[in-house]
Amino acid sequence: MPVGFRPACINDVPAIVSMLADDLLGARREDTSLPISSRYLNAFAAIKADSNQLLLVADRANVAIACLQITFIPTLSHQGMWRGQISGVRVAQLERGNWIGSQMIRFAIDECRRRGCGIVQLATSKSRVDAHRFYEKLGFTASHEGMKLALTSAA
Amino acid sequence: MPVGFRPACINDVPAIVSMLADDLLGARREDTSLPISSRYLNAFAAIKADSNQLLLVADRANVAIACLQITFIPTLSHQGMWRGQISGVRVAQLERGNWIGSQMIRFAIDECRRRGCGIVQLATSKSRVDAHRFYEKLGFTASHEGMKLALTSAA
Repeated sequence: MPVGFRPACINDVPAIVSMLADDLLGARREDTSLPISSRYLNAFAAIKADSNQLLLVADRANVAIACLQITFIPTLSHQGMWRGQISGVRVAQLERGNWIGSQMIRFAIDECRRRGCGIVQLATSKSRVDAHRFYEKLGFTASHEGMKLALTSAA
Repeated sequence: MPVGFRPACINDVPAIVSMLADDLLGARREDTSLPISSRYLNAFAAIKADSNQLLLVADRANVAIACLQITFIPTLSHQGMWRGQISGVRVAQLERGNWIGSQMIRFAIDECRRRGCGIVQLATSKSRVDAHRFYEKLGFTASHEGMKLALTSAA
């Protein structure tokens, strides 16, 4: 079956959460119990309510087999340039190695271009060495330090 | 005069653009000519139209002497966690070394906490070694690679 890319719908949320959890870093921090937690449904509603967010899935026969999120960010810098930021990139275990990830990133880059972005950016854990190579092959440069601060009271 | 923090208004745009330009990396990419380019005014309108963007200035006697932008990002990962992302951090030349930068970042972190974010994140050029130390002192960890891809057709 061919693979297409489309915005996620609410029925995709359990599959997306499974993909987020099926990951070395994600396994400890997600809740895959069903019915799906209202936390995820609330977050999905917030993403859908924001026209500068695009939650994208790769679809094969109406099943989400990969996902990512694009955040479109208007900024003053670079003479008022928009940025497209990619996050939450996952490919279902059985679909890895089938070029779906790179096709999906290329689709996302095209979407950023279509929306007038001058830069596409992402941050990936320093522990994900394979991911760095994957993004470098797609043209990204690891030019920045990605810095994080956990707000424990809210996490 | 005391310094306060407030959302930027349109009259602050020329001062913010001057701060963006008065920087080793920013000098080559901004346009400080007056009247201010419509590119900046359009970007300012896009920021103001998005309730998940907050362009903040430090104000002394009605003059913007520092700025940053926070992007509030709803995500499914980490059980539907919101993230606060800080970018475009600048302090006017004459005000550097006066703790305004660290006060402003602390203000931004509090704002992220108030909006329910579980993580505050930012990306800073690997060439800005002083900035890494500055953010590490404020509790940030350089845990991620920040990767960029320029879309030359739009830049």
